[in-house]
Amino acid sequence: MSLLVVGTVAFDDIETPFGKAGKIVGGAATYICYSAAFFSRDIKLVSVIGDDFPMNEIKKLQIKGVNTEGLQIKQGEKSFYWSGCYHADLNSRDTLDTQLNVLATFDPIVPDAYKNSEFVMLGNLTPTLQLRVLDQLNTQPILVVLDTMNFWMSEEFINDLKKVLSRIDVLTINDEEARLLSGQHSLVKAAKIIHTLGPKFIIIKKGEHGALLFHDHQVFFAPALPLEEVFDPTGAGDTFAGGFIGHIAKTRDISFDNMKRAVIIGSAMASFCVEQFGIRCLESLNETQIEARVQQFIDLVQFDIELIA
Amino acid sequence: MSLLVVGTVAFDDIETPFGKAGKIVGGAATYICYSAAFFSRDIKLVSVIGDDFPMNEIKKLQIKGVNTEGLQIKQGEKSFYWSGCYHADLNSRDTLDTQLNVLATFDPIVPDAYKNSEFVMLGNLTPTLQLRVLDQLNTQPILVVLDTMNFWMSEEFINDLKKVLSRIDVLTINDEEARLLSGQHSLVKAAKIIHTLGPKFIIIKKGEHGALLFHDHQVFFAPALPLEEVFDPTGAGDTFAGGFIGHIAKTRDISFDNMKRAVIIGSAMASFCVEQFGIRCLESLNETQIEARVQQFIDLVQFDIELIA
Repeated sequence: MSLLVVGTVAFDDIETPFGKAGKIVGGAATYICYSAAFFSRDIKLVSVIGDDFPMNEIKKLQIKGVNTEGLQIKQGEKSFYWSGCYHADLNSRDTLDTQLNVLATFDPIVPDAYKNSEFVMLGNLTPTLQLRVLDQLNTQPILVVLDTMNFWMSEEFINDLKKVLSRIDVLTINDEEARLLSGQHSLVKAAKIIHTLGPKFIIIKKGEHGALLFHDHQVFFAPALPLEEVFDPTGAGDTFAGGFIGHIAKTRDISFDNMKRAVIIGSAMASFCVEQFGIRCLESLNETQIEARVQQFIDLVQFDIELIA
Repeated sequence: MSLLVVGTVAFDDIETPFGKAGKIVGGAATYICYSAAFFSRDIKLVSVIGDDFPMNEIKKLQIKGVNTEGLQIKQGEKSFYWSGCYHADLNSRDTLDTQLNVLATFDPIVPDAYKNSEFVMLGNLTPTLQLRVLDQLNTQPILVVLDTMNFWMSEEFINDLKKVLSRIDVLTINDEEARLLSGQHSLVKAAKIIHTLGPKFIIIKKGEHGALLFHDHQVFFAPALPLEEVFDPTGAGDTFAGGFIGHIAKTRDISFDNMKRAVIIGSAMASFCVEQFGIRCLESLNETQIEARVQQFIDLVQFDIELIA
């Protein structure tokens, strides 16, 4: 059940209508690891930070079972920093500042001990770096999941993105990105076109409107939990991905039925993430709370109808 | 299982990115009746038309089992007419023309044979007219469902709307209207506030993002079917309401579990409605198709997770 996670470990500076977080720990790989760690105890991290990153935050990840041999620490350099401000409805945000810092020259080196990982989660990153990671593996993983964003769909990067898409199994993407990548407004049509680019499974995330899982002619829908208050949406997509791949790695079952469960678990994890700033909620979470949340999803969509036909 | 339906029977003139319908039969009560008629054969219509309305369209409703004794035909007057044009994403539309005609002086008279109806569906209409109908009933119905719109939430009408809300059981409303009526962005909070206005059950329709059913602390979510193409959204909300109340009237069961089924059936009916202009798709539909569509909803959301706790 070894799970290789690649992505950013970084600082975020978030402002929402409910307050300012200040400079806090963030990054796609951070959220993925925290979320996946509830399901898998053999997580191998590939990322990069500067010497400004607090060592106790690395220790916290290690205590969660995350191997940090592949986490490069660049002396005399600064960690990736992103600052953003959410609009009143929390559905859109403005980027106030992006400082690439260590990310500008990041070359992801996969340690030997990681090279036979069975499951791979490629967090949002430059497509060429995602490819670099796949190129270093000794064996074909059971499942490779990739997350990406609209930025890599521009003319400059689209060919690199298509190269990595042709080598992965599951793509997680949000609705607007799916439309951009496919040129189709209908998400059903968008998924069909994205299938032809490589991914056998496509998860289209619709934020507060839930997520769709497509595979061949099958489609599964998981709602987002209706919450009284969404406090901070940062990292929700990565937390979803972490729960998804964590469950798959734990169960080693890549059937469509098990992917459905993984989507529900990812959605449950994401519903916790948005309740507080940053990774705070994920840090203090326990398994009983997760089970109770999954039960809420069951209650939310369960119905029984007797069909005559 | 007698079902009283009140609402407009009218002409629509619709333009979507896929074409122009021309002047076709529409109106909230028309969609409600066509949809409910698949489940209930004892439907009593209260509405008004001018003498320009084709008699064969009335016959079609009668053949579906709709009693039209309460359908007033105003000689020398014209039927209600609405013309609208949908934007490219079909989520918004511009009203090009509204001609109230017979609706301007409509006084809904409930025939004696209707006055003990067990189920009542008040389609979108001036709140005072919806109240007028309730005032004429001899017995308290088992369930009263009301649909309304943002127009009746303005200062001029809000007190009338609140009066009728205090006398109904189920409110169907879309997400933006729920936010307007409650002053809350969160739909969970909005439903709580709307509860205090009277309705014990609140259905918040989110168009392509599905529908939420709230009752006390319970919440149920039904997705919209992911379709390759939405052709014409006109009447989808009314078709949903017709399927919902039709199933309730057929089963005479107003438990939360049965309301969940009714929401799924309403969603299935709405998914047919949007596939063609106007009522066309509903006219040619059969029960086997409906059952197959409900099965698609089951497949779309069904999953099984074994919880340890």
